Amino acid sequence: MDFDAMFDAQLDTLREEGNYRVFAELERRCGEFPKAKSHDADAPDEVTVWCSNDYLGMGQHPVVRQAMKDTIDQCGTGAGGTRNISGTNHHHLLLERELADLHGKEDALLFTSGYVSNWAALSTLGSRLPDAVILSDELNHASMIEGIRHSRAQKVIWKHNDPEDLDRKLARLPANAPKIVAFESVYSMDGDICPMEEIVEVAEKHGALTYLDEVHAVGLYGPRGGGVSEERGLAHRITLIEGTLGKAYGCMGGYVTGSASLCDFIRSFASGFIFTTALPPAVAAAATASIAHLKQSDTERQAQRAQVANLRAKLDARGIPHLDNESHIIPVMIKDPVKCRMLADILMRDWGIYVQPINYPTVPKGTERLRFTPGPLHSEADIDHLVTALTVLWKQCALAHAVA
Amino acid sequence: MDFDAMFDAQLDTLREEGNYRVFAELERRCGEFPKAKSHDADAPDEVTVWCSNDYLGMGQHPVVRQAMKDTIDQCGTGAGGTRNISGTNHHHLLLERELADLHGKEDALLFTSGYVSNWAALSTLGSRLPDAVILSDELNHASMIEGIRHSRAQKVIWKHNDPEDLDRKLARLPANAPKIVAFESVYSMDGDICPMEEIVEVAEKHGALTYLDEVHAVGLYGPRGGGVSEERGLAHRITLIEGTLGKAYGCMGGYVTGSASLCDFIRSFASGFIFTTALPPAVAAAATASIAHLKQSDTERQAQRAQVANLRAKLDARGIPHLDNESHIIPVMIKDPVKCRMLADILMRDWGIYVQPINYPTVPKGTERLRFTPGPLHSEADIDHLVTALTVLWKQCALAHAVA
Repeated sequence: MDFDAMFDAQLDTLREEGNYRVFAELERRCGEFPKAKSHDADAPDEVTVWCSNDYLGMGQHPVVRQAMKDTIDQCGTGAGGTRNISGTNHHHLLLERELADLHGKEDALLFTSGYVSNWAALSTLGSRLPDAVILSDELNHASMIEGIRHSRAQKVIWKHNDPEDLDRKLARLPANAPKIVAFESVYSMDGDICPMEEIVEVAEKHGALTYLDEVHAVGLYGPRGGGVSEERGLAHRITLIEGTLGKAYGCMGGYVTGSASLCDFIRSFASGFIFTTALPPAVAAAATASIAHLKQSDTERQAQRAQVANLRAKLDARGIPHLDNESHIIPVMIKDPVKCRMLADILMRDWGIYVQPINYPTVPKGTERLRFTPGPLHSEADIDHLVTALTVLWKQCALAHAVA
Repeated sequence: MDFDAMFDAQLDTLREEGNYRVFAELERRCGEFPKAKSHDADAPDEVTVWCSNDYLGMGQHPVVRQAMKDTIDQCGTGAGGTRNISGTNHHHLLLERELADLHGKEDALLFTSGYVSNWAALSTLGSRLPDAVILSDELNHASMIEGIRHSRAQKVIWKHNDPEDLDRKLARLPANAPKIVAFESVYSMDGDICPMEEIVEVAEKHGALTYLDEVHAVGLYGPRGGGVSEERGLAHRITLIEGTLGKAYGCMGGYVTGSASLCDFIRSFASGFIFTTALPPAVAAAATASIAHLKQSDTERQAQRAQVANLRAKLDARGIPHLDNESHIIPVMIKDPVKCRMLADILMRDWGIYVQPINYPTVPKGTERLRFTPGPLHSEADIDHLVTALTVLWKQCALAHAVA
């Protein structure tokens, strides 16, 4: 059987649809972020990254780097085992305590990634709580969708960010069924933020467990970086807060926080937690340093907000349409996979501006976009350069301008 | 609804069965491995680790540490995004080339862990190849089982390491159905090695794709550390070789290697690859250095083999029963979860010997064991100390001795 031919046929379909992905090969340069060296033949040698999830540049922060290097010298490069079989390191425990404190919860549990934390936690809750029903916002991240699917629990999709629809759907369920309401604070592709208080109130009314993904919010929102749930004073009313160490904290890994019983339950039953090598102690130490820094420093968050407002205002001034939202994410809608890729290619090749085209399956077909994430380290000149480039391209491509 | 009470009830059941896990909190000490500082109240301050998957001590190797630290200074601590959205770094590509070369394949694809590589690759192959049937060795790792389950493809379990049973089960399937034979080289809990040539021949006879997990073999077997498939000259006959960077290579991460089409297919469709932050470039660089070192150095492998033979001989001399196998893993069967934990606790507390009791769900109930992994850095004195401790405990506990 010619398996390669079967693979190639499906890849050809992707290409025909304009959805075949080509990864930009970068070399981040510590101290120069968001500038990076490009290894791609079609790109200038140096590019400016406009689509990083290292939202605050913490990945190059001296305190974070030093913690990682010191811990390599102290403990080596890897954990050497699963958490159960020789892989639990003192630095994992220190990080879990830091995370529990960040969200005001009793305990926290580390995973190798945010993807795995969502997948493992939701699949464990859904499969091990008898007759559980998971109520999932229709725009939840792939990791949550896969976790719910894997649990084989009953799944109910509610309209995106619509507490009334959630209320109606909860009301239809048996009173004694354990109900899990799964949602995100910041939806990364549209950049919109959920009506958290209303959702929490509806969930409380029905006695449901609340499962909140804050991966695009931790480090960025709230006075200590505890996310939108901290900013709005709602963390104590949410059963489980999930987050990542790989975005604003500039490292790698994911986690859940909640009651001691909840964390122990997931720790004890989640296949994706139990049967995998623990994070390198040095990564845990770097993340701990990053969280601790952003707990007491608001400088990075303020600078980021200023640059987000700045870019939005300049896009508006030139009539470049972008989604209006409350977050740090600025999506410019293109609505065509081929045009979206073409624009990104020209930005990279002619302007040294790197923004990945966001096509299917990351977003639904027909909603392709360029997605900009300005940070505190983007300069005024970077922003002006980007806006000029987009203005020139907008004219060239004759794309619809926003109504002024 | 009192969710904590529901969690506690299931945790209580685990405790009653003797299967509740308590993680040993260690602090690895670079340069002193396998010695580690213990943070547990019931353990001496310094312990010797006897159950690490850092089989060769590469996690503290100067070349590996230096590569990781240099890359932190060069590129920072995190990748800053998914592979598609700004997260692909030059160091990921270098590592993928190194891995393809290691196994003599066209290409390789990195994942955040070996668990994710198995889960994502098998779920993608099983779900996207129409009418695929996955034939899975009955003792395959949890990550493979979960990947197969997630794919919702038809699954056929064949008897552990039994090519004849595989042959019979393949023969029953429709000729035109894509068949995937999933198995491991070294099974980590029993330490047995598969009859690889026979399995490959059976698979070839039926035109099946072969999916081989070498996580407990890469770095350790074969003249360049390419695993059992390299040692036996079979790598070119296997469609997909999966491995880890978190065990013998002393870092973190997983991968698959195979044809360019195969890797591109998984790259393009696997949710667990697409929607997750890439490995830190520094981890990729450390892994590349580790692989490159073990490609040209056989010293560590030879020393490991010597110490494995040494411990086996000394256990035999004292009549301590252990599973006979061809690998570097020495399981001492206890067959009772409570006794297994008790023995491990005494070894830790009284002897400073850390070996994690292996209980359900890692192994089936009734097959609980202590599992020793001697490495090149265990000294003669370490081995004598371990054998003395086990001899004393064997007498005290009146456990059955092996027939001499």
